[in-house]
Amino acid sequence: MNPRARLATSDGLRPGEVALGVEPTPAPANLYFIGRIFTPWATRGECPRRGDLAGPLCRVEIAEPWTEALFGIEAFERLQLLYWMHLARRDLVLQNPRRGDEVHGTFALRSPVRPNPIASSIVALERVEGSSLFVRGLDCVDGTPLIDVKPEHCPRA
Amino acid sequence: MNPRARLATSDGLRPGEVALGVEPTPAPANLYFIGRIFTPWATRGECPRRGDLAGPLCRVEIAEPWTEALFGIEAFERLQLLYWMHLARRDLVLQNPRRGDEVHGTFALRSPVRPNPIASSIVALERVEGSSLFVRGLDCVDGTPLIDVKPEHCPRA
Repeated sequence: MNPRARLATSDGLRPGEVALGVEPTPAPANLYFIGRIFTPWATRGECPRRGDLAGPLCRVEIAEPWTEALFGIEAFERLQLLYWMHLARRDLVLQNPRRGDEVHGTFALRSPVRPNPIASSIVALERVEGSSLFVRGLDCVDGTPLIDVKPEHCPRA
Repeated sequence: MNPRARLATSDGLRPGEVALGVEPTPAPANLYFIGRIFTPWATRGECPRRGDLAGPLCRVEIAEPWTEALFGIEAFERLQLLYWMHLARRDLVLQNPRRGDEVHGTFALRSPVRPNPIASSIVALERVEGSSLFVRGLDCVDGTPLIDVKPEHCPRA
Protein backbone atom coordinates (compact mmCIF):
# COMPACT_ATOMS: atom_id res chain seq x y z
CA MET A 1 0.00 0.00 0.00
CA ASN A 2 1.35 3.39 -0.97
CA PRO A 3 0.60 5.90 1.84
CA ARG A 4 1.15 8.87 -0.48
CA ALA A 5 -1.54 7.59 -2.84
CA ARG A 6 -3.97 7.29 0.05
CA LEU A 7 -3.29 10.81 1.20
CA ALA A 8 -4.13 12.06 -2.27
CA THR A 9 -7.78 11.04 -1.90
CA SER A 10 -8.22 11.24 1.87
CA ASP A 11 -10.72 14.11 1.74
CA GLY A 12 -14.04 13.42 3.44
CA LEU A 13 -13.01 10.04 4.85
CA ARG A 14 -14.29 8.70 8.17
CA PRO A 15 -12.03 6.77 10.60
CA GLY A 16 -10.69 3.59 9.01
CA GLU A 17 -11.99 4.30 5.52
CA VAL A 18 -9.66 3.69 2.59
CA ALA A 19 -9.93 5.24 -0.86
CA LEU A 20 -8.13 4.18 -4.02
CA GLY A 21 -5.10 6.27 -4.72
CA VAL A 22 -5.20 5.45 -8.40
CA GLU A 23 -7.61 6.11 -11.23
CA PRO A 24 -9.07 2.77 -12.42
CA THR A 25 -9.28 1.96 -16.13
CA PRO A 26 -12.78 2.49 -17.57
CA ALA A 27 -14.33 -0.62 -19.07
CA PRO A 28 -14.75 -0.97 -22.84
CA ALA A 29 -18.50 -0.70 -22.35
CA ASN A 30 -20.83 2.28 -22.10
CA LEU A 31 -24.16 2.65 -20.34
CA TYR A 32 -27.38 4.13 -21.67
CA PHE A 33 -29.71 5.92 -19.29
CA ILE A 34 -33.10 4.51 -20.32
CA GLY A 35 -35.21 6.82 -18.17
CA ARG A 36 -35.46 8.55 -14.85
CA ILE A 37 -36.93 7.87 -11.40
CA PHE A 38 -39.08 10.43 -9.62
CA THR A 39 -39.35 10.06 -5.83
CA PRO A 40 -40.44 12.25 -2.89
CA TRP A 41 -36.81 12.62 -1.71
CA ALA A 42 -35.00 15.71 -2.94
CA THR A 43 -31.69 15.01 -1.20
CA ARG A 44 -29.70 11.93 -0.23
CA GLY A 45 -30.24 12.75 3.43
CA GLU A 46 -34.00 12.38 3.04
CA CYS A 47 -33.84 8.96 1.35
CA PRO A 48 -34.79 5.89 3.39
CA ARG A 49 -31.92 3.53 4.20
CA ARG A 50 -33.76 0.76 2.40
CA GLY A 51 -36.80 0.62 0.14
CA ASP A 52 -40.13 -0.55 1.55
CA LEU A 53 -42.70 -2.32 -0.64
CA ALA A 54 -45.36 -0.46 1.36
CA GLY A 55 -43.53 2.88 0.98
CA PRO A 56 -44.56 5.91 -1.07
CA LEU A 57 -45.55 5.65 -4.72
CA CYS A 58 -42.74 6.62 -7.10
CA ARG A 59 -42.82 7.20 -10.86
CA VAL A 60 -40.37 5.53 -13.21
CA GLU A 61 -40.37 7.26 -16.59
CA ILE A 62 -38.99 5.31 -19.56
CA ALA A 63 -37.47 7.51 -22.26
CA GLU A 64 -37.43 7.12 -26.03
CA PRO A 65 -36.31 5.08 -27.91
CA TRP A 66 -36.95 2.43 -25.23
CA THR A 67 -40.68 2.78 -24.44
CA GLU A 68 -41.74 -0.05 -26.78
CA ALA A 69 -39.68 -2.43 -24.62
CA LEU A 70 -42.34 -2.07 -21.86
CA PHE A 71 -44.73 -4.30 -23.86
CA GLY A 72 -46.17 -6.89 -21.46
CA ILE A 73 -44.69 -5.36 -18.30
CA GLU A 74 -48.11 -5.05 -16.60
CA ALA A 75 -48.19 -8.85 -16.18
CA PHE A 76 -45.65 -8.61 -13.33
CA GLU A 77 -46.42 -7.69 -9.73
CA ARG A 78 -42.76 -7.26 -8.84
CA LEU A 79 -39.98 -5.76 -10.88
CA GLN A 80 -36.26 -5.42 -10.40
CA LEU A 81 -34.94 -1.94 -11.18
CA LEU A 82 -31.29 -1.07 -11.73
CA TYR A 83 -30.38 2.59 -11.40
CA TRP A 84 -27.29 4.76 -11.34
CA MET A 85 -26.53 6.48 -8.03
CA HIS A 86 -25.04 9.49 -9.73
CA LEU A 87 -24.21 11.38 -6.52
CA ALA A 88 -22.00 8.67 -4.97
CA ARG A 89 -18.20 8.69 -4.90
CA ARG A 90 -16.66 5.58 -6.43
CA ASP A 91 -13.18 5.24 -4.96
CA LEU A 92 -13.74 3.78 -1.46
CA VAL A 93 -12.63 0.19 -0.81
CA LEU A 94 -13.11 0.30 2.98
CA GLN A 95 -16.06 2.16 4.51
CA ASN A 96 -17.21 3.13 7.98
CA PRO A 97 -20.96 3.52 7.47
CA ARG A 98 -21.84 4.28 11.10
CA ARG A 99 -18.78 6.48 11.77
CA GLY A 100 -17.79 4.09 14.56
CA ASP A 101 -15.20 1.38 14.99
CA GLU A 102 -16.61 -0.99 12.38
CA VAL A 103 -14.99 -0.85 8.99
CA HIS A 104 -16.36 -2.96 6.14
CA GLY A 105 -15.19 -3.71 2.63
CA THR A 106 -17.29 -2.01 -0.02
CA PHE A 107 -18.42 -5.39 -1.45
CA ALA A 108 -19.67 -6.42 2.02
CA LEU A 109 -22.02 -3.39 2.06
CA ARG A 110 -24.97 -2.23 -0.05
CA SER A 111 -23.84 1.39 0.31
CA PRO A 112 -24.29 3.59 -2.79
CA VAL A 113 -20.54 4.23 -2.60
CA ARG A 114 -18.97 1.53 -4.81
CA PRO A 115 -16.86 1.23 -7.98
CA ASN A 116 -19.97 1.06 -10.16
CA PRO A 117 -22.73 2.86 -8.23
CA ILE A 118 -25.54 0.66 -9.53
CA ALA A 119 -28.44 0.06 -7.15
CA SER A 120 -30.76 -2.92 -7.51
CA SER A 121 -34.20 -2.79 -5.91
CA ILE A 122 -37.21 -5.06 -6.02
CA VAL A 123 -40.36 -2.94 -6.34
CA ALA A 124 -44.10 -3.56 -6.34
CA LEU A 125 -45.69 -2.46 -9.64
CA GLU A 126 -48.99 -0.69 -8.98
CA ARG A 127 -49.88 0.44 -12.50
CA VAL A 128 -48.57 1.40 -15.91
CA GLU A 129 -49.59 4.64 -17.66
CA GLY A 130 -48.03 5.03 -21.09
CA SER A 131 -44.29 5.20 -20.51
CA SER A 132 -44.63 5.61 -16.73
CA LEU A 133 -44.42 2.81 -14.15
CA PHE A 134 -45.86 3.59 -10.72
CA VAL A 135 -44.04 1.52 -8.10
CA ARG A 136 -43.36 1.19 -4.36
CA GLY A 137 -40.10 0.05 -2.78
CA LEU A 138 -37.55 2.62 -3.91
CA ASP A 139 -34.93 4.39 -1.81
CA CYS A 140 -33.28 6.84 -4.20
CA VAL A 141 -33.12 10.57 -4.70
CA ASP A 142 -35.54 12.33 -7.07
CA GLY A 143 -34.22 12.35 -10.64
CA THR A 144 -32.03 9.24 -10.39
CA PRO A 145 -31.09 7.84 -13.84
CA LEU A 146 -32.57 4.43 -14.71
CA ILE A 147 -30.46 1.65 -16.23
CA ASP A 148 -32.69 -1.43 -16.44
CA VAL A 149 -36.12 -2.93 -15.72
CA LYS A 150 -36.48 -6.71 -15.36
CA PRO A 151 -39.13 -9.06 -13.99
CA GLU A 152 -38.23 -9.90 -10.38
CA HIS A 153 -35.88 -12.81 -9.80
CA CYS A 154 -35.16 -13.97 -6.28
CA PRO A 155 -34.40 -17.54 -5.24
CA ARG A 156 -37.20 -19.28 -3.39
CA ALA A 157 -35.00 -21.40 -1.13
CA MET B 1 -42.17 4.26 -36.56
CA ASN B 2 -39.82 4.67 -39.47
CA PRO B 3 -39.81 1.43 -41.52
CA ARG B 4 -36.51 2.33 -43.17
CA ALA B 5 -34.84 2.64 -39.78
CA ARG B 6 -36.11 -0.79 -38.80
CA LEU B 7 -34.82 -2.33 -41.99
CA ALA B 8 -31.40 -0.97 -41.21
CA THR B 9 -31.04 -3.24 -38.16
CA SER B 10 -33.26 -6.15 -39.17
CA ASP B 11 -30.38 -8.64 -39.43
CA GLY B 12 -30.75 -11.73 -37.26
CA LEU B 13 -34.27 -10.90 -36.06
CA ARG B 14 -36.88 -13.57 -35.33
CA PRO B 15 -40.57 -13.11 -36.25
CA GLY B 16 -42.10 -10.10 -34.50
CA GLU B 17 -38.84 -8.79 -33.07
CA VAL B 18 -38.13 -5.07 -33.29
CA ALA B 19 -34.73 -3.40 -33.10
CA LEU B 20 -33.97 0.27 -32.60
CA GLY B 21 -33.26 2.05 -35.84
CA VAL B 22 -31.30 4.76 -34.08
CA GLU B 23 -28.11 4.90 -32.06
CA PRO B 24 -28.96 5.85 -28.46
CA THR B 25 -26.95 8.51 -26.63
CA PRO B 26 -24.37 7.03 -24.24
CA ALA B 27 -24.84 8.06 -20.61
CA PRO B 28 -22.41 10.47 -18.96
CA ALA B 29 -21.20 7.58 -16.81
CA ASN B 30 -18.59 4.91 -17.34
CA LEU B 31 -18.29 1.43 -15.92
CA TYR B 32 -15.26 -0.26 -14.39
CA PHE B 33 -14.81 -3.99 -14.79
CA ILE B 34 -13.83 -5.03 -11.25
CA GLY B 35 -12.97 -8.63 -12.08
CA ARG B 36 -13.96 -11.64 -14.12
CA ILE B 37 -16.14 -14.73 -13.74
CA PHE B 38 -14.88 -18.20 -14.61
CA THR B 39 -17.54 -20.82 -15.33
CA PRO B 40 -17.66 -24.27 -16.99
CA TRP B 41 -19.52 -22.84 -20.02
CA ALA B 42 -17.35 -21.83 -22.96
CA THR B 43 -20.18 -20.61 -25.21
CA ARG B 44 -23.56 -18.97 -24.73
CA GLY B 45 -25.24 -22.09 -26.05
CA GLU B 46 -23.86 -24.17 -23.18
CA CYS B 47 -25.02 -21.78 -20.44
CA PRO B 48 -28.05 -22.77 -18.34
CA ARG B 49 -31.17 -20.68 -18.88
CA ARG B 50 -31.13 -19.74 -15.23
CA GLY B 51 -28.60 -20.12 -12.41
CA ASP B 52 -29.07 -22.87 -9.83
CA LEU B 53 -27.86 -22.47 -6.25
CA ALA B 54 -26.99 -26.18 -6.37
CA GLY B 55 -25.23 -25.83 -9.75
CA PRO B 56 -21.51 -26.11 -10.49
CA LEU B 57 -18.89 -24.19 -8.55
CA CYS B 58 -17.70 -21.05 -10.34
CA ARG B 59 -14.81 -18.72 -9.53
CA VAL B 60 -15.23 -14.97 -9.30
CA GLU B 61 -11.86 -13.23 -9.43
CA ILE B 62 -11.68 -9.66 -8.11
CA ALA B 63 -8.99 -7.54 -9.80
CA GLU B 64 -6.75 -4.82 -8.40
CA PRO B 65 -7.24 -2.13 -7.19
CA TRP B 66 -10.51 -3.50 -5.77
CA THR B 67 -9.46 -6.59 -3.77
CA GLU B 68 -9.37 -4.76 -0.41
CA ALA B 69 -13.12 -4.11 -0.83
CA LEU B 70 -13.73 -7.83 -0.14
CA PHE B 71 -13.00 -7.31 3.57
CA GLY B 72 -15.75 -9.03 5.56
CA ILE B 73 -17.39 -10.73 2.56
CA GLU B 74 -17.05 -14.21 4.11
CA ALA B 75 -19.80 -13.31 6.61
CA PHE B 76 -22.45 -13.68 3.88
CA GLU B 77 -23.98 -16.94 2.66
CA ARG B 78 -25.63 -15.31 -0.32
CA LEU B 79 -24.30 -12.58 -2.57
CA GLN B 80 -25.75 -10.59 -5.42
CA LEU B 81 -23.44 -10.35 -8.44
CA LEU B 82 -23.84 -7.87 -11.28
CA TYR B 83 -21.99 -8.71 -14.49
CA TRP B 84 -21.74 -7.46 -18.05
CA MET B 85 -23.09 -9.79 -20.74
CA HIS B 86 -20.53 -8.63 -23.25
CA LEU B 87 -21.73 -10.90 -26.07
CA ALA B 88 -25.34 -9.62 -26.19
CA ARG B 89 -26.77 -7.19 -28.74
CA ARG B 90 -28.34 -4.11 -27.15
CA ASP B 91 -30.82 -2.73 -29.68
CA LEU B 92 -33.89 -5.01 -29.39
CA VAL B 93 -37.06 -3.54 -27.88
CA LEU B 94 -39.34 -6.48 -28.79
CA GLN B 95 -38.07 -10.06 -28.57
CA ASN B 96 -39.32 -13.50 -29.53
CA PRO B 97 -37.36 -15.73 -27.16
CA ARG B 98 -38.95 -19.02 -28.22
CA ARG B 99 -39.08 -18.19 -31.95
CA GLY B 100 -42.86 -18.67 -31.82
CA ASP B 101 -45.86 -16.36 -31.85
CA GLU B 102 -45.15 -14.75 -28.49
CA VAL B 103 -43.39 -11.43 -28.62
CA HIS B 104 -42.37 -9.69 -25.39
CA GLY B 105 -40.97 -6.27 -24.57
CA THR B 106 -37.33 -6.41 -23.52
CA PHE B 107 -38.18 -5.06 -20.03
CA ALA B 108 -40.70 -7.90 -19.56
CA LEU B 109 -37.88 -10.46 -20.08
CA ARG B 110 -34.66 -11.33 -18.27
CA SER B 111 -32.94 -12.03 -21.60
CA PRO B 112 -29.27 -10.93 -21.85
CA VAL B 113 -30.36 -8.83 -24.83
CA ARG B 114 -31.22 -5.40 -23.36
CA PRO B 115 -30.08 -1.76 -23.58
CA ASN B 116 -27.60 -2.25 -20.73
CA PRO B 117 -26.71 -5.97 -20.73
CA ILE B 118 -26.25 -6.19 -16.96
CA ALA B 119 -27.17 -9.51 -15.35
CA SER B 120 -28.04 -9.79 -11.67
CA SER B 121 -27.75 -13.17 -9.96
CA ILE B 122 -28.07 -14.32 -6.39
CA VAL B 123 -25.33 -16.85 -5.64
CA ALA B 124 -24.37 -19.09 -2.73
CA LEU B 125 -20.89 -18.22 -1.41
CA GLU B 126 -18.97 -21.42 -0.63
CA ARG B 127 -15.57 -19.98 0.26
CA VAL B 128 -13.15 -17.11 -0.21
CA GLU B 129 -9.50 -17.66 -1.19
CA GLY B 130 -7.54 -14.42 -1.44
CA SER B 131 -9.18 -12.42 -4.23
CA SER B 132 -11.31 -15.37 -5.44
CA LEU B 133 -14.91 -16.07 -4.47
CA PHE B 134 -16.16 -19.61 -5.09
CA VAL B 135 -19.90 -19.52 -5.71
CA ARG B 136 -22.86 -21.52 -7.07
CA GLY B 137 -25.83 -20.10 -8.94
CA LEU B 138 -24.31 -18.51 -12.04
CA ASP B 139 -25.52 -18.82 -15.64
CA CYS B 140 -22.92 -16.92 -17.66
CA VAL B 141 -20.21 -17.70 -20.16
CA ASP B 142 -16.62 -18.24 -19.04
CA GLY B 143 -14.71 -14.96 -18.84
CA THR B 144 -17.71 -12.67 -18.24
CA PRO B 145 -16.68 -9.25 -16.85
CA LEU B 146 -17.80 -8.50 -13.27
CA ILE B 147 -19.38 -5.16 -12.31
CA ASP B 148 -20.43 -5.45 -8.67
CA VAL B 149 -20.64 -7.69 -5.59
CA LYS B 150 -23.22 -6.94 -2.88
CA PRO B 151 -24.69 -8.83 0.07
CA GLU B 152 -27.97 -10.42 -1.07
CA HIS B 153 -31.11 -8.30 -0.83
CA CYS B 154 -34.46 -9.87 -1.60
CA PRO B 155 -37.75 -8.92 0.03
CA ARG B 156 -39.09 -11.47 2.52
CA ALA B 157 -42.76 -10.77 1.84
